[in-house]
Amino acid sequence: MELRELANALGGLTVDGDESFQVDGVASLDDAGQSDLGFVRDDVVAATLGGRAVGALIAPHGIEVGGRPAIRSANPSLDFARATGLLHPAPKPPRGIHPRAFVDPSAEIDPSAAVGPLASVGAGCRIGPGSVVHPNVAVGEDVVIGADCVLHLGCVVREGTRIGDRVILQPGCAIGGDGFGYEFDEKGEHAKVPQVGNVVLEDDVEVGANSTIDRARLGSTRIGRGSKVDNLVMIAHNVEVGAHSIFISQVGIAGSTTIGERVFFMAQSGAGGHLKIGDGAFVGARGGVIEDLEAGSRVWGFPALPERTWHRSQAIFGRLTDLVRRVRRLEKQTGGNDS
Amino acid sequence: MELRELANALGGLTVDGDESFQVDGVASLDDAGQSDLGFVRDDVVAATLGGRAVGALIAPHGIEVGGRPAIRSANPSLDFARATGLLHPAPKPPRGIHPRAFVDPSAEIDPSAAVGPLASVGAGCRIGPGSVVHPNVAVGEDVVIGADCVLHLGCVVREGTRIGDRVILQPGCAIGGDGFGYEFDEKGEHAKVPQVGNVVLEDDVEVGANSTIDRARLGSTRIGRGSKVDNLVMIAHNVEVGAHSIFISQVGIAGSTTIGERVFFMAQSGAGGHLKIGDGAFVGARGGVIEDLEAGSRVWGFPALPERTWHRSQAIFGRLTDLVRRVRRLEKQTGGNDS
Amino acid sequence: MELRELANALGGLTVDGDESFQVDGVASLDDAGQSDLGFVRDDVVAATLGGRAVGALIAPHGIEVGGRPAIRSANPSLDFARATGLLHPAPKPPRGIHPRAFVDPSAEIDPSAAVGPLASVGAGCRIGPGSVVHPNVAVGEDVVIGADCVLHLGCVVREGTRIGDRVILQPGCAIGGDGFGYEFDEKGEHAKVPQVGNVVLEDDVEVGANSTIDRARLGSTRIGRGSKVDNLVMIAHNVEVGAHSIFISQVGIAGSTTIGERVFFMAQSGAGGHLKIGDGAFVGARGGVIEDLEAGSRVWGFPALPERTWHRSQAIFGRLTDLVRRVRRLEKQTGGNDS
Repeated sequence: MELRELANALGGLTVDGDESFQVDGVASLDDAGQSDLGFVRDDVVAATLGGRAVGALIAPHGIEVGGRPAIRSANPSLDFARATGLLHPAPKPPRGIHPRAFVDPSAEIDPSAAVGPLASVGAGCRIGPGSVVHPNVAVGEDVVIGADCVLHLGCVVREGTRIGDRVILQPGCAIGGDGFGYEFDEKGEHAKVPQVGNVVLEDDVEVGANSTIDRARLGSTRIGRGSKVDNLVMIAHNVEVGAHSIFISQVGIAGSTTIGERVFFMAQSGAGGHLKIGDGAFVGARGGVIEDLEAGSRVWGFPALPERTWHRSQAIFGRLTDLVRRVRRLEKQTGGNDS
Repeated sequence: MELRELANALGGLTVDGDESFQVDGVASLDDAGQSDLGFVRDDVVAATLGGRAVGALIAPHGIEVGGRPAIRSANPSLDFARATGLLHPAPKPPRGIHPRAFVDPSAEIDPSAAVGPLASVGAGCRIGPGSVVHPNVAVGEDVVIGADCVLHLGCVVREGTRIGDRVILQPGCAIGGDGFGYEFDEKGEHAKVPQVGNVVLEDDVEVGANSTIDRARLGSTRIGRGSKVDNLVMIAHNVEVGAHSIFISQVGIAGSTTIGERVFFMAQSGAGGHLKIGDGAFVGARGGVIEDLEAGSRVWGFPALPERTWHRSQAIFGRLTDLVRRVRRLEKQTGGNDS
Repeated sequence: MELRELANALGGLTVDGDESFQVDGVASLDDAGQSDLGFVRDDVVAATLGGRAVGALIAPHGIEVGGRPAIRSANPSLDFARATGLLHPAPKPPRGIHPRAFVDPSAEIDPSAAVGPLASVGAGCRIGPGSVVHPNVAVGEDVVIGADCVLHLGCVVREGTRIGDRVILQPGCAIGGDGFGYEFDEKGEHAKVPQVGNVVLEDDVEVGANSTIDRARLGSTRIGRGSKVDNLVMIAHNVEVGAHSIFISQVGIAGSTTIGERVFFMAQSGAGGHLKIGDGAFVGARGGVIEDLEAGSRVWGFPALPERTWHRSQAIFGRLTDLVRRVRRLEKQTGGNDS
């Protein structure tokens, strides 16, 4: 692609230098060859360009890039991400239903959608324009999928799920498994509580590889618009998540907890059930929340403590032998015993 | 369904009010409409009924429900769970082998069982009456599955697994993967130890979405009758679990550990290998057991401590800066130094 | 198999006693019958042989095994592992492409490889001699798989992945999902950063059930030769792992971290992003690394502390009430207050 064409596709950005320079792909500055596009965030990075092979750059205005042709951008990392998508479009099966797919006759698949070989789509499903169901995906009955979604290899969507537009499901994730609910029966054994609700994934949600989002007991488990879920995350039944929240890998959220907008759960953290987590709350890695969190809270540890408290306590934890030694010395000084 | 019919199906319960009242489904009290069935646990909940649309209820004897027709029950939450199953039966493929399934000719599938499209069943398998293998499930060779089991979309059962009656496998779970075992070879590299045992899931076991239960090195990894495993749980090779135990999401149990009956592992907890966990033991969220646990033990933390010890220590942890301040003050008073 | 034949297959080991003794399989000493092969590690184990039914043994030289025929070995556990593989070869589909598989016409499958029913192999793939793709596996476009690999039921390999020789993928693992990367766009919402790199699994790598290894943003996520990954492990984009490292179950490694050779991550541990973990480092169970680790380091806890420090601090943690009591006593003695 010519640099000029790319700059136009990025919203009419300007090019310094040879506008007809051909870029074949994007690369990191370490790996980039002479036909690759790289990016520099600031003049600190720009200062490392000497001797690198990279052919062209996306760079902030006014930063020297060694004479290379450059697309000038107010947000080089965002525009580089977009250029990446333009230069490396994801592979997808051709539109239409592959003859080796299984689609129930009652399902409605938009003609511009694609269903790959060995994917199954159950009775009553609707799949919107431009959406892609990759090979070996399983979609249960009565699932509604909007426009321009991507269901990657081998993911699973159980019956009744509602999926908005531009939703991405990574390989192996499981949407709509039964919530984990039992009542003790007359013999004191676990009787399954049927989970007859569903899962709703709003527009622009992404769910990572092998993550699981359980269907509601009644009603819906809901992931709000633009929220992103990394790999191996567990979101239990009847959880409700607001818009633009983030769940890093291996997070677990227990049942019926309500999570606000722009909440951030770092890796391997979690929250107990029936809690309310306010907008913009932040839970550090391994944090475990067991009480409601106010909007904007920042917590770490299990059970979670305010960020500053945890950092201080954790620092002392690493020197507890010192503290014990000091107490022992005091005991000697005062004639006490340290038994 | 008429309320009378439902009450009969629940074991001959009595109905107060209009026995011919038609209920279309169950719902939470917040969501229930005029043809929905709800339930009240006690008079505290019953007191919130005013103004709600819910049409009929399951309620304890003698509790006022605003004149609505009511099924009277000694255990409303259990009977409501059962009513849920009766009013919302799970979708399942029609009995028989779907023409788009692959079933090895040597496999024996009971005529009342169902195998969905794009599911595979290997040589020598036996699948019992009423069991359902949903689309895109993979069952390896020589697997025996009892009666009335449900294998949800995309789950995987490797060769040699033995599955009892009424077992439920949620989407994406993987039964019978190789245990993780290596010996150092002559070059000091990891030589795989073949894992030639199997997995046994006894009657009424349920395994959650994307959980993994590994086959034994020799012999069997065994999950006892009625035990329930939530999502993303890891149970390693040669683990043996007794009846009616519970593993909440993201628990990990290392190899060859023996777990008793009615043991409870809360979310994100775990146990090391080659341990014995006694009947009725309870491991709190994030607990990590590294020693044998006696029957009835309650532990938290990693390494696990007795419940009360952990709670106290954890409370002090959150105030360690106070403790340091107190020691510093003592040092000043006694003329000591706090370096 | 005759003991003589087995001893030869193990590299020409010697047999004491009846060389023509027939062994049907291997078993643990507890379960072994008269035609089973067991093994003893040392004379402590050998002393427990009395009364056991086991028919033959692999045993160190010079150790008395009750008159049973025995293969003598300098490393009985390694040779027993090898004997296990010889006596219990894993089931595999017959060579060739099953008629119910889907293989894109442009893919090149070695004639000695096997692709099972309902497996899919995308355009441009190459699969080497002796490799086995089990049923319901999904392989995306342009994937290269070497010789003698095993892709177990239902695993997923996304486009562009490069897999060496003798690699084993356990059921349900997901190789090549998108890395988790976003930039804030003009509206302050998460814009996806396309992940256009790939995953490279070098020779002799094994990946456990339902583990996930994400493709690189640019370049490659790489797992070095002989490294072994247990179940439900998350390895993020652009991580690079050296040879012969070990990741036990439920470990999580964040993006762009570089891990050396023979590093050991115990269960449920993890490492943050953009770190360097030196050769031979050891991270204890639940350890969470947030800084670079030098070669040979041993750490535990989160944030990770040196092994000895953590053990000592953890021991004191379990007795914090004692420490508080001692401080209170000192305060009384010195007339201070303990508020």
